[in-house]
Amino acid sequence: MLDFKVTPNERVGVADIDPADISDVIILGGGPAGLSAGLYAARAGLSTYIIEKETLGGQVATTGHVENCPGCLAAPGIDYAERLKNQAVEFGANIVYAEVLRVELSGNPKAIHTTNGKMLAKSVIIATGASPRKLDVPGEQEYRGRGVSYCATCDGPFFKDKVLAVVGGGDAAVEEANYLTRFASKVVIVHRRDTLRATKIIQDRATSNPRIEFRWNAVVEEILGDQKVTGLRLRDVKTGNRSELPVDGVFVFVGMNPATKIFDSQLRLTSDGYIITDDKMQTNLKGVFAAGDVRHTPLRQVITAAADGAIAATYADRYLHGE
Amino acid sequence: MLDFKVTPNERVGVADIDPADISDVIILGGGPAGLSAGLYAARAGLSTYIIEKETLGGQVATTGHVENCPGCLAAPGIDYAERLKNQAVEFGANIVYAEVLRVELSGNPKAIHTTNGKMLAKSVIIATGASPRKLDVPGEQEYRGRGVSYCATCDGPFFKDKVLAVVGGGDAAVEEANYLTRFASKVVIVHRRDTLRATKIIQDRATSNPRIEFRWNAVVEEILGDQKVTGLRLRDVKTGNRSELPVDGVFVFVGMNPATKIFDSQLRLTSDGYIITDDKMQTNLKGVFAAGDVRHTPLRQVITAAADGAIAATYADRYLHGE
Repeated sequence: MLDFKVTPNERVGVADIDPADISDVIILGGGPAGLSAGLYAARAGLSTYIIEKETLGGQVATTGHVENCPGCLAAPGIDYAERLKNQAVEFGANIVYAEVLRVELSGNPKAIHTTNGKMLAKSVIIATGASPRKLDVPGEQEYRGRGVSYCATCDGPFFKDKVLAVVGGGDAAVEEANYLTRFASKVVIVHRRDTLRATKIIQDRATSNPRIEFRWNAVVEEILGDQKVTGLRLRDVKTGNRSELPVDGVFVFVGMNPATKIFDSQLRLTSDGYIITDDKMQTNLKGVFAAGDVRHTPLRQVITAAADGAIAATYADRYLHGE
Repeated sequence: MLDFKVTPNERVGVADIDPADISDVIILGGGPAGLSAGLYAARAGLSTYIIEKETLGGQVATTGHVENCPGCLAAPGIDYAERLKNQAVEFGANIVYAEVLRVELSGNPKAIHTTNGKMLAKSVIIATGASPRKLDVPGEQEYRGRGVSYCATCDGPFFKDKVLAVVGGGDAAVEEANYLTRFASKVVIVHRRDTLRATKIIQDRATSNPRIEFRWNAVVEEILGDQKVTGLRLRDVKTGNRSELPVDGVFVFVGMNPATKIFDSQLRLTSDGYIITDDKMQTNLKGVFAAGDVRHTPLRQVITAAADGAIAATYADRYLHGE
């Protein structure tokens, strides 16, 4: 079997690219979906550029331990991200560090305007991800991965017989609180109002769950900890009274922000801002695909993002070959 | 973070299971889709049984080197399969070695009749896979992974500047022959008839491709080799003349067999026999899901099978919890 050369394509400046050059595919975002798309596109022989604005790996790069990724390298998230990057780069994908400011997706070629200049491509794969909304309180950043989590499926099993708080009152918050009672001995839902926004059936399940308690009219002012999370400092929005709630972990579900602002006038999105695709990852525009968390999808996990990327690159390739 | 105990659940006999026991989920098939579903189901706390008739890992277990699997452990296929199995087992999935003879999927519980007895479950995930049809000629088994392949995406890049044969005349054969010319210096399509079955546009692309040649009215009698493939012995079906065709590799595309015979009266299938699901992997029957190659899907790769398994288990779990 043949070996592949590692080319010096790990950090390409936009200035090094001839502005008249039209690449086969530009991938926006270097998380699992984007890097997987890069691997598949480059391996199929397409000229491939992955544009990432910060660090490769997306959300998984900041995950302590990637456990629920079937067949993946069992490793800290950052090592997993490194492996993904190496695979894409070894097959010849080029990585460009720049921020995307504006896109023109309907024409051919498609134009991507970045902080470092303009790039042209025959096809585009959008893998810009989504990020959980933060509480923006002291301790949140500090204890992330040490008791602060935004993903129950990812981190729930680490809290067997522990006490947890869930922040939020919508469907996601209440559903995940129910889910977390499989592991935790108690889950306290902390909500800023005195009623839940979640749908009736999900609410009923929570109110009848003996392991779930509620703290109404409460906002989190600070996440307390000592190496890891030990509790929350809460403020009652009606009385102004402050109190401490001892917990071993806190799950924050106050919404997600898909990174789709620069696409919203050109692509069909859900009311929440996610990109709508068919099962081939094709958007409403020919030659424009979406993959991973940014897409309207039934599950947001590393493994599904990577699969989306593989499918998007496969169908971008077929699109380029007139199929 | 907590550790998980490894329980002695790697080889469970059907006879050890109380026939009256109703498990949460039974997964049929222990390839990447089934093992991934097992990991997700067991991790969510469901009582989970994976039934496999031969060896775990499916097709990937017989793959020399898993290269196009984003973020996966880079390894021989058998090691990758082992890693998948360990992940599922560590989270508590039980593995049962038995052949499934008959299923009753519409009721609740659902009944799975195996060579070792009957098992009951509230939900079923079908991940029985599909296998490429073989030529059944001498050398085919011997040189598999050493020049004999059934997957162009998987193995094409290993044949840069080499000479390949593609056996078959349908859409898959001709499309993949086109694809393989990106790597190979020459691709010879060997077909038993004197015209292709492939659709016109795909045919045109092949006939106008300077790297593609045709051997009409030819069947493969033997795959020749010395450590790896060196050529094919062909027989002309009109004249009976035998000849040798020197090649470095042979890709066989004479159809696939999805393992769905025992389901065909109960589940909605495509005309090719693949199980039809929605994007949550739900079949036409409540509580019955399908994942991986057995499913009607836009791409059949290890990464997409594993993603399917994760989605199927997630929605089996939601189904069991009345969502």
